[in-house]
Amino acid sequence: MAKANGNVPPVAVLMRRGARVESQHRVAYAVADPDGRLLEAAGDVEQEVFPRSAIKPLQALALVESGAAARFAVSEQELALASASHSGEPEHVALVRAWLARLGLDPSALECGAHPPLHGPSAQRLAAAGEAPERVHNNCSGKHAGMITVARHLGAPLAGYSRADHPVQRLIADLLRELAGLAALPAPAIDGCGVPTWPIPLGRLATALARFAAPAGLPAKRADACVRAQAAMLAHPHLVAGTDRACAEIMTVAGGVLVKTGAEGVYAACLPKRRLGVVLKVEDGAGRAAPVALLALLRALGALDGKSAAALAGRMQPELRNHTGVVVGRIEPAVGWPALRQRS
Amino acid sequence: MAKANGNVPPVAVLMRRGARVESQHRVAYAVADPDGRLLEAAGDVEQEVFPRSAIKPLQALALVESGAAARFAVSEQELALASASHSGEPEHVALVRAWLARLGLDPSALECGAHPPLHGPSAQRLAAAGEAPERVHNNCSGKHAGMITVARHLGAPLAGYSRADHPVQRLIADLLRELAGLAALPAPAIDGCGVPTWPIPLGRLATALARFAAPAGLPAKRADACVRAQAAMLAHPHLVAGTDRACAEIMTVAGGVLVKTGAEGVYAACLPKRRLGVVLKVEDGAGRAAPVALLALLRALGALDGKSAAALAGRMQPELRNHTGVVVGRIEPAVGWPALRQRS
Repeated sequence: MAKANGNVPPVAVLMRRGARVESQHRVAYAVADPDGRLLEAAGDVEQEVFPRSAIKPLQALALVESGAAARFAVSEQELALASASHSGEPEHVALVRAWLARLGLDPSALECGAHPPLHGPSAQRLAAAGEAPERVHNNCSGKHAGMITVARHLGAPLAGYSRADHPVQRLIADLLRELAGLAALPAPAIDGCGVPTWPIPLGRLATALARFAAPAGLPAKRADACVRAQAAMLAHPHLVAGTDRACAEIMTVAGGVLVKTGAEGVYAACLPKRRLGVVLKVEDGAGRAAPVALLALLRALGALDGKSAAALAGRMQPELRNHTGVVVGRIEPAVGWPALRQRS
Repeated sequence: MAKANGNVPPVAVLMRRGARVESQHRVAYAVADPDGRLLEAAGDVEQEVFPRSAIKPLQALALVESGAAARFAVSEQELALASASHSGEPEHVALVRAWLARLGLDPSALECGAHPPLHGPSAQRLAAAGEAPERVHNNCSGKHAGMITVARHLGAPLAGYSRADHPVQRLIADLLRELAGLAALPAPAIDGCGVPTWPIPLGRLATALARFAAPAGLPAKRADACVRAQAAMLAHPHLVAGTDRACAEIMTVAGGVLVKTGAEGVYAACLPKRRLGVVLKVEDGAGRAAPVALLALLRALGALDGKSAAALAGRMQPELRNHTGVVVGRIEPAVGWPALRQRS
């Protein structure tokens, strides 16, 4: 078992202006197997991190495992959206609207709040048409539609489904706690979309993701839910994210690897073939550093072959352009990072 | 003289979700006097940082010192704009247009590239009118108008004024080098607006700012330029930044303190009454951390009285709201940061 390198996570990602380092990002990570073994780590793996949207695929398990998905004929596309931080493009929005309509609801049932589509052109079209962003454009609207479906299945009130004491959230909390192998979860904080987010030790989060990746040892219903949720994400990477988004590109290119971004520099990956769960947290929360770090880690773990790495080169070392269109720098992994114990 | 605390800057700013720390930012800083004495410091003060827009007031000195400002009747408002990262509001844009028109030029002379106004409502108005952002909306357009004015004064070609080998930029480089007390500057990188940005050791940058703050020991022309540039910024804080911007609010509230933000988490302050220059660099470049750190540092240095601190409370510890409008956390200085040697 790899030992954490103390409390200061190593510098993992550099932002260079010209040839010089202008800013740098420290990243903690953990790589675990379903038995709870920590195979690789940096930084403090005991630190409790808010997993944010990186565990949407685990939250979505409740939809399948509870029987709600079967009862309400939730499609594979909808299951992908339940795991998504989608870009609010027309396809995402239409699918969520149709899902809610099938339940006899409109988007006002969503408790996620509104924000402009993450997809720039979609946001611009909305603005140009003089339309305000709606809740259905929120990147979490698919997850919320899933939670509403579970609430309906449980016969619980729909209003308040996002509150920590609602049966839907208690179901999800139990599921996360069991996957992470914890006796109890600390009190949650509130996520960007209003639902609870529970702090979980980084190493345990990697274990939970490994169990999702390789669910053979889980109870049959949960294992089946994991298999279905994985298949949905891999079949519809565009629905899990959107146009020009790292998650969609990585899942499209790197056969069988599941990845999910979260706010504040969290990124999760599941490697079913290797039976591994991977999670990282950028100390400072920088979204620009997280995909660069994740790709460097996946590459070092042997989860990206040369062809995949070449296809993702622009994301592994993104260029920075200024307002005049000139390349002024780049973001890249620090030399020697990550320092794995077991080079693959 | 305070010693730097090694190469890992201390954690200075926390982002809390609920009561827990979700992300954190490390900050290096230096506080110097005009004689080059380092009075307070954290992190590596020898590290060469790109000062970015934090030294626009020093770049603007060339406009006055060269005689260009007098020759082309540059107003106090225009001098403030030359030191500005303005928000592209109608007032900023109109003044830069008028300045260029006085030189017989239109905004196509600007080499800064275009970006939408930093001021949200101004950007929205532009988008709603179906108009593309112009170069004059660039937050650096006032600085560029100033550089063009110097080029005209020097009889140098206007085209290419933003290149490192142009006489205007060589004049500015000499000025920065002398203020920082360096024998030579390293090769520059390219800033967001296309002009050179020279890496300068953090401690020397604080010295340069102290000399700007308390210029009595400088040659008469330079000292006079410093006095005029200071007066312009303090008289027109709105022109140096804009509506709801930290720089404008701090200069409006904290009598006689000059502050200037830069990209990638740089923030500079000049305390003329105390004869001090202050500069900080957020290791990871986070813009959200820089003003919180600067205000904590100014408070600890005794540069903000209780009344000013109260007026700036919302910036000293900003709340974070999610998409549903609920307060989910806050950004705040770490307990015990900054750890000054000389408590004021």
